Amino acid sequence: MKASQLQLKFEQVRSNKIFELFVIGVILFSALLVGAKTYDMPSTVNHITNVLDWLISAFFLVEITIRFLAEKRKLDFFKSFWNWFDTLIVLVSLLPMENSDTALIARLVRVFRVLRMISIIPELRILLVSLMKALPQLGYVMLLMFIIFYIYAAIGSTLFEDINPVLWGDITISLLTLFRVMTFEDWTDVMYETMEVYPLSWFYYLSFIFFTAFAFLNMVIGIVVNVMEEENAKAYREAHQDEPTVADISQQLKQLEQKIDRLAEHPPER
Amino acid sequence: MKASQLQLKFEQVRSNKIFELFVIGVILFSALLVGAKTYDMPSTVNHITNVLDWLISAFFLVEITIRFLAEKRKLDFFKSFWNWFDTLIVLVSLLPMENSDTALIARLVRVFRVLRMISIIPELRILLVSLMKALPQLGYVMLLMFIIFYIYAAIGSTLFEDINPVLWGDITISLLTLFRVMTFEDWTDVMYETMEVYPLSWFYYLSFIFFTAFAFLNMVIGIVVNVMEEENAKAYREAHQDEPTVADISQQLKQLEQKIDRLAEHPPER
Amino acid sequence: MKASQLQLKFEQVRSNKIFELFVIGVILFSALLVGAKTYDMPSTVNHITNVLDWLISAFFLVEITIRFLAEKRKLDFFKSFWNWFDTLIVLVSLLPMENSDTALIARLVRVFRVLRMISIIPELRILLVSLMKALPQLGYVMLLMFIIFYIYAAIGSTLFEDINPVLWGDITISLLTLFRVMTFEDWTDVMYETMEVYPLSWFYYLSFIFFTAFAFLNMVIGIVVNVMEEENAKAYREAHQDEPTVADISQQLKQLEQKIDRLAEHPPER
Amino acid sequence: MKASQLQLKFEQVRSNKIFELFVIGVILFSALLVGAKTYDMPSTVNHITNVLDWLISAFFLVEITIRFLAEKRKLDFFKSFWNWFDTLIVLVSLLPMENSDTALIARLVRVFRVLRMISIIPELRILLVSLMKALPQLGYVMLLMFIIFYIYAAIGSTLFEDINPVLWGDITISLLTLFRVMTFEDWTDVMYETMEVYPLSWFYYLSFIFFTAFAFLNMVIGIVVNVMEEENAKAYREAHQDEPTVADISQQLKQLEQKIDRLAEHPPER
Repeated sequence: MKASQLQLKFEQVRSNKIFELFVIGVILFSALLVGAKTYDMPSTVNHITNVLDWLISAFFLVEITIRFLAEKRKLDFFKSFWNWFDTLIVLVSLLPMENSDTALIARLVRVFRVLRMISIIPELRILLVSLMKALPQLGYVMLLMFIIFYIYAAIGSTLFEDINPVLWGDITISLLTLFRVMTFEDWTDVMYETMEVYPLSWFYYLSFIFFTAFAFLNMVIGIVVNVMEEENAKAYREAHQDEPTVADISQQLKQLEQKIDRLAEHPPER
Repeated sequence: MKASQLQLKFEQVRSNKIFELFVIGVILFSALLVGAKTYDMPSTVNHITNVLDWLISAFFLVEITIRFLAEKRKLDFFKSFWNWFDTLIVLVSLLPMENSDTALIARLVRVFRVLRMISIIPELRILLVSLMKALPQLGYVMLLMFIIFYIYAAIGSTLFEDINPVLWGDITISLLTLFRVMTFEDWTDVMYETMEVYPLSWFYYLSFIFFTAFAFLNMVIGIVVNVMEEENAKAYREAHQDEPTVADISQQLKQLEQKIDRLAEHPPER
Repeated sequence: MKASQLQLKFEQVRSNKIFELFVIGVILFSALLVGAKTYDMPSTVNHITNVLDWLISAFFLVEITIRFLAEKRKLDFFKSFWNWFDTLIVLVSLLPMENSDTALIARLVRVFRVLRMISIIPELRILLVSLMKALPQLGYVMLLMFIIFYIYAAIGSTLFEDINPVLWGDITISLLTLFRVMTFEDWTDVMYETMEVYPLSWFYYLSFIFFTAFAFLNMVIGIVVNVMEEENAKAYREAHQDEPTVADISQQLKQLEQKIDRLAEHPPER
Repeated sequence: MKASQLQLKFEQVRSNKIFELFVIGVILFSALLVGAKTYDMPSTVNHITNVLDWLISAFFLVEITIRFLAEKRKLDFFKSFWNWFDTLIVLVSLLPMENSDTALIARLVRVFRVLRMISIIPELRILLVSLMKALPQLGYVMLLMFIIFYIYAAIGSTLFEDINPVLWGDITISLLTLFRVMTFEDWTDVMYETMEVYPLSWFYYLSFIFFTAFAFLNMVIGIVVNVMEEENAKAYREAHQDEPTVADISQQLKQLEQKIDRLAEHPPER
């Protein structure tokens, strides 16, 4: 049997509906297994879940291999981000980590197999890609926000370090505390504490909340406007694709004018 | 008297304005009764409210029966979702549950009679239907959000179970804890607790907040864009229904051209 | 001097720029006085503020009287909502309430004089009127939200009354507790308390948060869509008021066609 | 060498890509230095950072001088807001403040050098300017919001001063407490405290939350509508700049009509 025939066979398997549903089923089952292992269970059940884990890993390896072999030009396989993504997840979960030190890491790695839900469902893949596309456009607003955070964190850890080193010890901890203030989580407790030493420090918090809220609002509006524009452009194209434009009308009128001009210059023979 | 005559009588009753207002009045009264029963009252008053409850149930039964008999083709009655809804609420509140065990359930069931407000007021019915229509379009964003929640809950209950089993005992409890973190409710308490064991666990919370906020934002924008598009399409249709389109103008111009062509070929006799 | 001459004099005073600015100045001063009185002050200063209070009241009375007398037809004065508003505020602050029982009420009444800022600045008046106009359109969403609140409050005070009567004692208190849950203010404390008795009561809170968030989102979107539509309609009218419409073009073409028809039927004499 | 030649040299340096990148590098390094100084460090390292601080200040002084000398007309330098901004930051950080009293202020001043990131990156500058432009349009909504805050603060500090002077002592503190209530931060604790004396004071908080949420919503919608309108206007101009308008078509039609009229009046010679 030739290699091309084998490749065709694998391609048939890959595009088989039942095979696809079975893969989704195994991913779902592995997700449930991940959830089940968070409950306390007798050791026999633990043993079974470990065996199931290895079976799932083996199945995923077979599935990825089929996908690879089904590709006409093997290099095309590595052109898709999602193939890299799947292969990485499967390979990492195959690493032998059975001694007690790395058992925890092994469990965590298997959790990420649930992410294969995204790579297997096309709609989720499209959604994620479109979400990622929106991010770089927000780059400058996020940079501005980081500058605000950084300056306030530097001021905070300079002024308030002696008041509460747990919240304002250094700039990293201060950044975390400021994020907490931005989410309004017990921010008054943080403020009242510093107001006892610096009675005017409420201005520090209120101005920070104002600046970040304002920058955040602009970020949200930025996303909304981007999405709206794309939708409007799409809607406009769809609505006008078969319809003549005003420019077409102008063109038609020019032709009509030329026709009348010709008629005037060379009147028809009666 | 023939059956069809009876049906006509019932139809007249059903579409009677006074009957409709009386039904709304009884629903409002049953809502007030539900509220009144949450206050401590002397047993005589309790007795009266119980009698009133039964009277309301009886009235609702009569009303539903009238609605059913007023239908020309009896099967049409079951084609409306709201008829099923009303019938179910009325029938369940008629079940005999007077012994002490089920008395609580009986009280709860009667609370749902307030929901008949929605089925009796057409505007609320339309509003609810249009809200429900928006849901399926958000299906994939909600699935993505659930995957994020599930993965973080699995990681959380794997890493943090020994730190605080009340918050991270198993995957169900972890999901609830993560929902709490998403609403920013005392989320720093949860974080500071785990940061004592894993100092870098702030990354777990911040990345989770970032992902869910981002997915939530997209969900909201999704709804806004959908609503806007529908409104715009409606507004466009309304604005342009009597007005000629650019395509009409193009058509008019073509007819004019043909007329001039005919004129050129067959000039009129003077 | 005739009455009409007097009326004209008052009208001149009313529309005098300096008079207007002086009134705004007095209102601002009364606002500062209201703020100043919240600080502890020696009794002599207290005495002065009381005297100033009476002077302001007297000035406002004179001002309202001028406005009334400046009106050509005295009944027109009462056609404006803002005149009623001003008169009421001034009259109430003139009531003699100097004994200790009503002194507190007297102080509160004077706070509302700050509201005259709204009636004196036309832009604020317009803003408030446009805000008020948006409210009735949201009537049904708010009714739906109230039904959700009412049903959940009835269920809550039925099930959880014995667990914590301070939070779930009767339907009024339950409504307040649910509003607290909606603002995410320590809602997990409320939930964890009831979960000890009813372990599944998390579903009660999560479904409530979901429903109210969804209804609230629709309320916000409702306002946004309304505002947008008005803005778009205004922008469209402004952009197209001097420009011919497609319908005008169609009309022009019809006239041209008739002209050509006439030309074909009655060719011109050479 | 003539002054104009020197100016040209400086202009070349200023617009040199390597020079620009080096300036950004120094700003980034000064930001890192500001962050590093919030950590506890041995005194030798402290000494180094102080020296580095002075080097950075010196470099910034040189850089600003180059920018100034590179200007053709020296007065143009002061026409740019950002030049003023940079000069102020650099000059202030040069002030000698080495004694223990002002050392803290000196450290804080150096934090603001991070702000030079905004003046050096054109995109951030544009972003900030466009944010600032949105502010004045919101002036009246913010005034309305301040009036609401002021009235509620006056009422609050009148009624609740004796209950908790820490929260309601005078109008300034009350304004801060109300801001806290608006962010929903432990607002029920504040409310439950006053409800023990005034059981109906929940109405004070709920109406305040309603009014501010409503005003805030309008502020947000105001910004969104403004941004949208600008984007739409820009998109409309871009889409229609080369395309004929309906008015152009109307003009073309009129010319055609005149041509036919002339043809009818002066039929061509055959």
